[in-house]
Amino acid sequence: MITIGIDIGGSSVKAVLTEIGARTIATRQVSSRSGEGPGAVIDVLHGVIASLMDEAGDSRVEGIGVGMAGTIDIDEGVVYHPPNFAKWDAVPLASRLSERWHVPVRLDNDANCAALGESWYGAGRGLDSFVGMTLGTGVGGGIIVNGAVYHGTRGFAGEIGHVSIDYNGPECNCGGRGCIEAYVGIGYLMTRALPLLENDATSGLHERAVSDPGSLTPRDLTEAALEGDTTAAGILSDTGTKLGCAAASVANLLDITTFLIGGGISGAGDLIVQPMLLSARSRVLEVHRDSLEVRLAELGNDAGMLGAAALLRSGDGR
Amino acid sequence: MITIGIDIGGSSVKAVLTEIGARTIATRQVSSRSGEGPGAVIDVLHGVIASLMDEAGDSRVEGIGVGMAGTIDIDEGVVYHPPNFAKWDAVPLASRLSERWHVPVRLDNDANCAALGESWYGAGRGLDSFVGMTLGTGVGGGIIVNGAVYHGTRGFAGEIGHVSIDYNGPECNCGGRGCIEAYVGIGYLMTRALPLLENDATSGLHERAVSDPGSLTPRDLTEAALEGDTTAAGILSDTGTKLGCAAASVANLLDITTFLIGGGISGAGDLIVQPMLLSARSRVLEVHRDSLEVRLAELGNDAGMLGAAALLRSGDGR
Repeated sequence: MITIGIDIGGSSVKAVLTEIGARTIATRQVSSRSGEGPGAVIDVLHGVIASLMDEAGDSRVEGIGVGMAGTIDIDEGVVYHPPNFAKWDAVPLASRLSERWHVPVRLDNDANCAALGESWYGAGRGLDSFVGMTLGTGVGGGIIVNGAVYHGTRGFAGEIGHVSIDYNGPECNCGGRGCIEAYVGIGYLMTRALPLLENDATSGLHERAVSDPGSLTPRDLTEAALEGDTTAAGILSDTGTKLGCAAASVANLLDITTFLIGGGISGAGDLIVQPMLLSARSRVLEVHRDSLEVRLAELGNDAGMLGAAALLRSGDGR
Repeated sequence: MITIGIDIGGSSVKAVLTEIGARTIATRQVSSRSGEGPGAVIDVLHGVIASLMDEAGDSRVEGIGVGMAGTIDIDEGVVYHPPNFAKWDAVPLASRLSERWHVPVRLDNDANCAALGESWYGAGRGLDSFVGMTLGTGVGGGIIVNGAVYHGTRGFAGEIGHVSIDYNGPECNCGGRGCIEAYVGIGYLMTRALPLLENDATSGLHERAVSDPGSLTPRDLTEAALEGDTTAAGILSDTGTKLGCAAASVANLLDITTFLIGGGISGAGDLIVQPMLLSARSRVLEVHRDSLEVRLAELGNDAGMLGAAALLRSGDGR
């Protein structure tokens, strides 16, 4: 089955022409023109689709999948106020594309697409069920059950970033308290990290923490930790430990024991994976202890478009 | 479809002959002989089934559903070491019953059956999806998605009692920390309540808390609260608030916004339901705020056998 998958991000649109589960035929990446309103973005999409349709030649493209941040009505194919897109209220994106291209169009949110991409092409291959976590400014999540995205009642499921690990914990942007995002979302994480680095004159990051704190990123923490900086390593370890707290609750609730982590902070690799696994194992019900597993996502920024391409097939098993 | 549903408890076996979704034809309740080993329990089951088969007369009984505590292999129909049953290691209960009665037999755990019973006959009627919580010594849970039990990878899903609300919280019997069960399981709840009642000489429960603490039950708290005892009311309110913390995380993760609570402490009614609702609403993602709902279970101790009877039909929608 040949489909087009599109990942619409605030800065760029990434698209792929693929034979689902078999091969990637071609890819495109262009500016998303997110500041110019929905009309401009849709023009970008039409251009990318036209180009990939050309590339497909005589092969029939059987559908288009689109992943995007924001509140998405999956059944109606409408995207509501995506973050970082100007003048975008409610746009019936699926019908706008299907009317022009005369193929089925499926939408889903970006975190679900990323998890589905890993399921078909990445670290989730061979797994019936897993929970994907994308660690960025926010913490996105996608729950894969029997090879398909679990959507919940209205399509909003998977918000593992807003599973709380402490009902008295720090306030989260969402209005809740102690959400895992309020610990490991990049902004929160760096805010907690700075005072520790400022107070540790032996840390290689100490000077920048004092003089140019805004320049520090999770990647700096990882590099410093790999060079033996114990403060930086401790911050990453604590991040993993807290992720493990959330993972244990999720495993107990869902009886899903494999977690895939991707996104910026996951670049720390074992510096986060091992503490996360230890923490989750020490907390989870005994019946899950041996099967608990944390894997690094494999597809990076390609996961979204690849998962979007697979939307047309998910739900009918593999 | 006429089926038999059986709820095997530590003290009694409850069974029902029912036309699923339509009417209850007959019920039975007998001692489960749990202290005498699996053979005795199976004899009890055969006796109850024989009696209900007689009652069915010319109507064909199309299957038997069984609910029971313990670790259950749903696919193989095996029950492993149920609590409160003597000499019970691993018993292939489904095959033992199906070989004798020549009908399909389905097993599931007691909390899942209770939720399914409420879905067909009780407070869950008309709901596609909800989370059932049974508040007793432990906190059981059953997740209903599209009218069927969500089982997870190996059938262990739904353990909402072991969703943690505080990663530094009190230790739970399961080995985790801050599990909601470690706050509102009856033993934990009364342990937290006693010092408060001992220290409040104005409470109507003060004297018993001092002289005969073991006699106090959640029902006493409810009765005292209804008579204006503010300490007792505060304990119940705090219980509801903490349940709401767990419910918010679950709603965010699953996009399921209706919670049914049953079991002993739910007898407190609005004294628990209202604080639970307020707490969950104040914490959940905005998109769920208006749809969040807490209902009292309606079927009491009959939920398990009624849900067991419906096991033969769940999964094929309603």
